[in-house]
Amino acid sequence: MMTLSEAARANDGYELWLPPANDPAANLDIATLGTGATLDIAAGELHRDLATAPLPILLATNLRPELAALKLPGAALGREGYVVRRATVAGRAVILVSGNTETGVLYGAFALIRAARTGADLTTIALQSAPKVAVRVLDHWDNLDGSVERGYAGASLWNWWELPDYKDPRYTDYARADASLGINGVVLNNVNAKPDSLTPRYIAKAAALADVFRPWGIKVYLSARFSAPIELGGLKTADPLDPAVAAWWKAKADEIYRAIPDFGGFLVKANSEGQPGPRDYHRSHAEGANMLAAALKPHGGIVMWRAFVYAESDPDDRAKQAYTEFHPLDGKFADNVLVQVKNGAIDFQPREPFHPLFGAMPRTPIMLELQITKEYLGFATHLAYLGPLFSEVLEADTYARGKGSTVAKVIDGTLDHHALSGMAGVANIGRDRDWSGSTFNQANWYAFGRLAWDPDLSPEAIAREWAQQTFGPDPRLADIAVKMMMQSREAVVDYTGPLGLAHLMGTGHHYGPGPWIKDLARPEWNPVYYHRADASGIGFDRTRTGSNAIAQYSPEVARRLADPRTTPESELLWFHHLPWDWKMNSGETLWHALVAHYDQGVASVAAMQAEWDEARPLVDPERWQKTATFLAIQHREAQWWRDASLAYWMSLNHLPLPAGSAAPAHSLDWYEAQQFPWAPGQAR
Amino acid sequence: MMTLSEAARANDGYELWLPPANDPAANLDIATLGTGATLDIAAGELHRDLATAPLPILLATNLRPELAALKLPGAALGREGYVVRRATVAGRAVILVSGNTETGVLYGAFALIRAARTGADLTTIALQSAPKVAVRVLDHWDNLDGSVERGYAGASLWNWWELPDYKDPRYTDYARADASLGINGVVLNNVNAKPDSLTPRYIAKAAALADVFRPWGIKVYLSARFSAPIELGGLKTADPLDPAVAAWWKAKADEIYRAIPDFGGFLVKANSEGQPGPRDYHRSHAEGANMLAAALKPHGGIVMWRAFVYAESDPDDRAKQAYTEFHPLDGKFADNVLVQVKNGAIDFQPREPFHPLFGAMPRTPIMLELQITKEYLGFATHLAYLGPLFSEVLEADTYARGKGSTVAKVIDGTLDHHALSGMAGVANIGRDRDWSGSTFNQANWYAFGRLAWDPDLSPEAIAREWAQQTFGPDPRLADIAVKMMMQSREAVVDYTGPLGLAHLMGTGHHYGPGPWIKDLARPEWNPVYYHRADASGIGFDRTRTGSNAIAQYSPEVARRLADPRTTPESELLWFHHLPWDWKMNSGETLWHALVAHYDQGVASVAAMQAEWDEARPLVDPERWQKTATFLAIQHREAQWWRDASLAYWMSLNHLPLPAGSAAPAHSLDWYEAQQFPWAPGQAR
Repeated sequence: MMTLSEAARANDGYELWLPPANDPAANLDIATLGTGATLDIAAGELHRDLATAPLPILLATNLRPELAALKLPGAALGREGYVVRRATVAGRAVILVSGNTETGVLYGAFALIRAARTGADLTTIALQSAPKVAVRVLDHWDNLDGSVERGYAGASLWNWWELPDYKDPRYTDYARADASLGINGVVLNNVNAKPDSLTPRYIAKAAALADVFRPWGIKVYLSARFSAPIELGGLKTADPLDPAVAAWWKAKADEIYRAIPDFGGFLVKANSEGQPGPRDYHRSHAEGANMLAAALKPHGGIVMWRAFVYAESDPDDRAKQAYTEFHPLDGKFADNVLVQVKNGAIDFQPREPFHPLFGAMPRTPIMLELQITKEYLGFATHLAYLGPLFSEVLEADTYARGKGSTVAKVIDGTLDHHALSGMAGVANIGRDRDWSGSTFNQANWYAFGRLAWDPDLSPEAIAREWAQQTFGPDPRLADIAVKMMMQSREAVVDYTGPLGLAHLMGTGHHYGPGPWIKDLARPEWNPVYYHRADASGIGFDRTRTGSNAIAQYSPEVARRLADPRTTPESELLWFHHLPWDWKMNSGETLWHALVAHYDQGVASVAAMQAEWDEARPLVDPERWQKTATFLAIQHREAQWWRDASLAYWMSLNHLPLPAGSAAPAHSLDWYEAQQFPWAPGQAR
Repeated sequence: MMTLSEAARANDGYELWLPPANDPAANLDIATLGTGATLDIAAGELHRDLATAPLPILLATNLRPELAALKLPGAALGREGYVVRRATVAGRAVILVSGNTETGVLYGAFALIRAARTGADLTTIALQSAPKVAVRVLDHWDNLDGSVERGYAGASLWNWWELPDYKDPRYTDYARADASLGINGVVLNNVNAKPDSLTPRYIAKAAALADVFRPWGIKVYLSARFSAPIELGGLKTADPLDPAVAAWWKAKADEIYRAIPDFGGFLVKANSEGQPGPRDYHRSHAEGANMLAAALKPHGGIVMWRAFVYAESDPDDRAKQAYTEFHPLDGKFADNVLVQVKNGAIDFQPREPFHPLFGAMPRTPIMLELQITKEYLGFATHLAYLGPLFSEVLEADTYARGKGSTVAKVIDGTLDHHALSGMAGVANIGRDRDWSGSTFNQANWYAFGRLAWDPDLSPEAIAREWAQQTFGPDPRLADIAVKMMMQSREAVVDYTGPLGLAHLMGTGHHYGPGPWIKDLARPEWNPVYYHRADASGIGFDRTRTGSNAIAQYSPEVARRLADPRTTPESELLWFHHLPWDWKMNSGETLWHALVAHYDQGVASVAAMQAEWDEARPLVDPERWQKTATFLAIQHREAQWWRDASLAYWMSLNHLPLPAGSAAPAHSLDWYEAQQFPWAPGQAR
């Protein structure tokens, strides 16, 4: 166990939630039956991370004849599940870590480490688990020039220039972290893809990474630019129904699989925000996806086809457009295509209602796309634990097949009986020493991985196990960390966009408030499009009197959302345009409720600061100081969001602030004048 | 002393040449007389880095009355010099570390550490040294978006987004490394400067860095964009003779000094490669520099004004243009202006003759600008120790005041009696874990710092002391490292541009061969401009029959360069256009000599590989493997440079290769087709 004095040493965060044991028990009795790269890794991880064990540990796949008498679970574990329990093997009491495959054993080893670090009694350990979701991928929006779109943790992990020759040991450390959570896939390059990633030179680089990742159970995927047959192949078209185009992609897939035999497949952003796609040729998204799927199919690869589309030419509510485009295609996709749908219908806002496509395409495997990097939640500096955001959508009930048809059941395939299922998280990982830009940001990587394995886990339980592993077993520190984490996302909602407001941020960089912005070329790029505030009221009417976006939901859901009285307050202004003096269920006016939320957001950050002050004696000075500094930034900027937003709303409604609520520090002009041309993470 | 087993542990290179002692002697007797932040740092460094000492160590400035009886050197040490020697203070035998200032004491402490680590007997230690050059600065070409122009070691160290709030502990580690060498200034931002660095928000960020660096004896400087009065001040002009412009800069300087009382001053790239400058208003460089100098003067600041200019409108030899522009301005610069001149007249090529401005402006303090980052020498992956390159120019004799008028004496101010003197190095430092992209690249940072302190140091001695500190005291390893280092730069010259050839690289990224390039808009951007090869010969005639650039040198130098027989072979084709069958002094033809150099370059890299293989048992696996991998890349690319270059020359001269010299692996077309759109370090 780590002593306090050891914990108080400077810690740069590199070891994430997997700090090696201080005094690794070199004489720990860890044996394997059989040999294999992954089995060796599993044993190595136990040697690295366990300080003690009450019994010898034995690692073996279920195939070993020595285990036959144990009648271990077989089919229930699938290809990646594990069992960890006491057993007697060859007359010897051991802790057995097993699974149908070496990867299962590796996941079992990490489960054993997690159990040990979170206080489990290893003498009675009995774990069994299999992932509920098949494809658990991190999407790296990493550019070939080393920058990361919406990345706030330094340069891209991938040093494309030095690959494939130099395999930075950090790639292995990255794979360790992913594998410890059960993440089994990595999309290496930005969805806004350059064709270069599909050239022989870059395929060789991707293959080098695949070689590093393979024994950790991780497949490599690439974002594919739909127009690559033109740019690389010299074809005149990328029309998916053109045989030459299909042939080009087939040959390209064959070429990739020669270099990467277990290549995962393609992620495609098509006809979205300027990217090329099948609609350029009047073909459907299904026709585009299926053409690529056919090229991958002989090799076992899949296509992850994004449903994130909204058209310059479509005047309809942006929140409706993906459904409008994709719902008619249900049943038309090949069986190795996953349609990748963001949690909400706009774009990774601090809170969005669940996307109407969940449950609406029963004949299509729908995968969930979450954003781990905090593009809209304060970049690296604000503390916002996203477990509750992720779980909120997973727990949302689509009523697609009646009550209990949660998004989790849609995306894990159980609701509509799909074997193929997936969850993607847009990574928050860069070359900064602490990987994610802050210690608490690491928890979002962790929570994504754990929820992708089991979407039904509780975000609070995840927060606690993360904190125990990351900070050490002192329950006082874990209590403080969990308390901060569990209030943090709601704080961001409160100070940036309470009561269902969204998309109020500054243009381009997406940092800081910009609710007044109304002069951008496309209407749906402007915050005013989303809040629709004027002298008389605020909110986007998505009922029948407005865009009728609610009709895209199941009747049970739509009925509830049709009436502001039955709409959750947290989504009120997403679905309804209401007068400023609308009486909330609490009896206060909408305006007063809105102000109270902004004030609460700022107060929550102050509370987190006070809580973190209490943690000071319990945590190493480096991580304590960085977190404390970031919380101070967050408090100042929460106040800024609150003040700027209220100054703007008051310029429209001319209402006074409620008693006790302070006036904004500056004039609206001042807030409007703030510019951040060098904010990190902007697209190049 | 580090044992072999300890040395064999993985080492990520973060600790540079200053690895903390394995068993820091917590009970080492280290005392200070007086208190001060810098004195405390000096004591801390000794505690951190010394494992043992034969006597107590006492740190004190010469001002302490307890030291009066010792008659320590005073004026000879200046503001930054040190003395380290045995002394008896208050009846007690100690190793005394002293200087006129705390900074001097700090430098003395680092000298003591260096001596201990390179095998000196501390019982008889007697060191005394003062820097020969006053301003010893690293120029960081770091952009505000976190990218680094010509940077090959990851993102910018400066996290502008999180400054001034968060002061990454790495900033302190950076300051430690600089101070250990005597580097006393840092230009924070790219010479291709954005005006934003001069806004209040960014001045506050620079001030936060200055606060970190101050106790380490390091001043902060900023690159200033000459047109900032227009962009930030709303003026209609940046004419340096316009009183409103001068007033704007004066107010800006006052504002900066309020935030950074010891601000160093401005670095300016004016009227160069598209940057604005005084020539836009038909004013001279002196008029521009002096206007800025007047703004800084009351605060003690300086201007470093770059002489790196070549004009789109000037058809004359590019190598002549800086001299043409600046030579007439000698004596016209204010006394707080340094004119910053690159080592050669083109641009940091693997080899250039010394710049003709050295020695040509006796009434002007000229500072030397070197490039530590290897823009033209293989980025991070090629091993090229630049100590010999740096020393070559420092030792070059300008004959400005007769024999012995070396560049070193020009730039340290002794030749022409200037108190103000300076050396700048374009940094090779980024956020990558090993700072400089490879272990051996760290030696270039080290060599720059040591030569800036004392331009007369031997590059081989510097290599040895660097290797001993970086790898540990095993002489076998130091021998191998020094041998590799001392041959490495000449290898790069041989495989990229032997016999005085230069500027043959690919466009934009500056990586790999492109001697065939001839279609760029400005003539002097094209490699063909520099080599002038055709069927009959090769080389740039810079004698009287050509551009007569040699006339810019002292008559003694010019006379030697006028005749190919007295021109150093290493500079032959820089100054002369010669037929392919020109007979070298050795008797072989120019063509055969050229081929032999290319072959030698490739062979030298192979030799370095063999030498490094011998080092394998002596060095930790992480640094060994990365270096070995990089050497393999370098060998492959040396071959590529050689083959591509020969294929091109042979397409012109139609000569056969000498017996025993292998034909290029590919056709010239193949080499010409290579593209590197995502090479790192390109300007944004």
